[in-house]
Amino acid sequence: MGSSEPPTVAIVRDRLRALQERLCGEFELLDGSGRFRAERWQSGSGEGDTRTLVGGSVFERGGVGYSSAHGAMLPPAATERRLELAGRPYRAIGLTLALHPRNPYVPAANLHLRFLTTEEKDPAWWFGGGFDLIPSYPFDEDVRHWHRTAQEALLPFGENLHPRFKEGCDRATFLPHRGESLGVGGIAFEDFAEGGFDRCLSLVQAVGEAFIPAYAPIVIRRREHPFGERERSFQLERRGRSVEFQLLRDRSTLFGLQSGGRTEAILMTLPPLAAWRSSASHAPGTPEARLVGEFLLPRDWLAEERVLDPRR
Amino acid sequence: MGSSEPPTVAIVRDRLRALQERLCGEFELLDGSGRFRAERWQSGSGEGDTRTLVGGSVFERGGVGYSSAHGAMLPPAATERRLELAGRPYRAIGLTLALHPRNPYVPAANLHLRFLTTEEKDPAWWFGGGFDLIPSYPFDEDVRHWHRTAQEALLPFGENLHPRFKEGCDRATFLPHRGESLGVGGIAFEDFAEGGFDRCLSLVQAVGEAFIPAYAPIVIRRREHPFGERERSFQLERRGRSVEFQLLRDRSTLFGLQSGGRTEAILMTLPPLAAWRSSASHAPGTPEARLVGEFLLPRDWLAEERVLDPRR
Repeated sequence: MGSSEPPTVAIVRDRLRALQERLCGEFELLDGSGRFRAERWQSGSGEGDTRTLVGGSVFERGGVGYSSAHGAMLPPAATERRLELAGRPYRAIGLTLALHPRNPYVPAANLHLRFLTTEEKDPAWWFGGGFDLIPSYPFDEDVRHWHRTAQEALLPFGENLHPRFKEGCDRATFLPHRGESLGVGGIAFEDFAEGGFDRCLSLVQAVGEAFIPAYAPIVIRRREHPFGERERSFQLERRGRSVEFQLLRDRSTLFGLQSGGRTEAILMTLPPLAAWRSSASHAPGTPEARLVGEFLLPRDWLAEERVLDPRR
Repeated sequence: MGSSEPPTVAIVRDRLRALQERLCGEFELLDGSGRFRAERWQSGSGEGDTRTLVGGSVFERGGVGYSSAHGAMLPPAATERRLELAGRPYRAIGLTLALHPRNPYVPAANLHLRFLTTEEKDPAWWFGGGFDLIPSYPFDEDVRHWHRTAQEALLPFGENLHPRFKEGCDRATFLPHRGESLGVGGIAFEDFAEGGFDRCLSLVQAVGEAFIPAYAPIVIRRREHPFGERERSFQLERRGRSVEFQLLRDRSTLFGLQSGGRTEAILMTLPPLAAWRSSASHAPGTPEARLVGEFLLPRDWLAEERVLDPRR
């Protein structure tokens, strides 16, 4: 593998590994008592380092996984928009984070960053990734803070990126069989190579780093919020939606499982506990009904913020 | 719809509806306190009657759903082995049962029966279905009883059917990404039309009726078995596998969701609560490791029984 590895792979790997360290450190600090345990693994087609925090004070479970895979033939599923690359040898590396808080007032959150390159003399490559927020009992100010932080992280790379990436996330996280979004979205990009490798790498790193100031303040604000059985039960129901999303819709999960990836590493993002109710809907006017009716649909949160506060 | 409905549809509907009544009655009796509540529904492409038992003494949740769907064009996914039928108007009716017991020593179980016909002057039709058992802490004698009852139900229709249908179930319930079976199997058949409509209908009814003597004695034997947190936790983990099976592998779930079926009716078979562990495996020698190593693989349970007791 060594000699055929394009130099870009080593550069991206170093950045993603450093980011993994930093994310684990930040969220251990935030948790207070939980520690990430590392499991390094190798398989026929790849290797990885899966870090899992179990039973923390704030996080019931957290996972921050790095993985690398290579193959002799790039599957068509990975090249939907660049079909001419199908069948070429490739190398893919990625960082995945999923956090499942205990307190139902603290939203769950996901972060993905990936790089794919074909191994030719003149390699083709692109980045993909993004982050999204999955509240059970959302607060408007948290949702606006989340989207604002994403917008600010992308601003140095051009004003047009945030609206595109936000819409990309709204599209990617919609659950057609439920007629609702998984959460309140965030940003998502795919097949991204605009402006050259250095710019794209900086953008991906900025997205990964922005996850911390986007998410941590929400955790701090809500982690002491009182809750009871009702809120816990609804949280578990919403986690059921996350399971449905991951197993039915998430392209990287399905691609990973179908291509023989390491199951434990791919499914480490699933929640520790999830529930399914037998009755479909919540009573109108309850916070649970309000989540679906007011939050789980594409909304231009930052435009609404400008209406509320024209100075922004 | 009325005038274009082939007479076979009304016949099958009556049988499946009667079977639904009987199954609900039997499992209410077995539960002792829980009652099935009916929800009748209609949608653009179908109708149904979903019956759910919640919070029973024996069953944490049970669902017995009848549904009927029709469409102008039979999707290719439903005609893998008879491609000449793709695109014809069709009608499909089905009965689905899923039982999730409280006690981890009582296995979960599924039953499916379905009928599909094209609406032409000379309609093509077939039946599909079967049942399978999903133990967390299995007993050899239960597994043998389960397979023996299935074998006996099929015997009047020919000696060759049970081995074929058992192998069909082993194949259908294998989880490649886990390298293990979902449970200990049972019987499964697809595109079945051998010997004419009357014979096939009798066979399907025999399968549906055999589910009761196959499953009920196991429930009765194990429902008082003492258990603690460890067994409950493993049960929830195994239910996680059932969720993976249903959302990743189960063709009728995926077909139903993709064709715009009623989500609540399709997903009523999901467990009320499921868990995912962060570490992959159980310590060798534990009952939990024994389940995977000794039970969750295709085994000829009835041949083993003949070795143990040559009189059979």
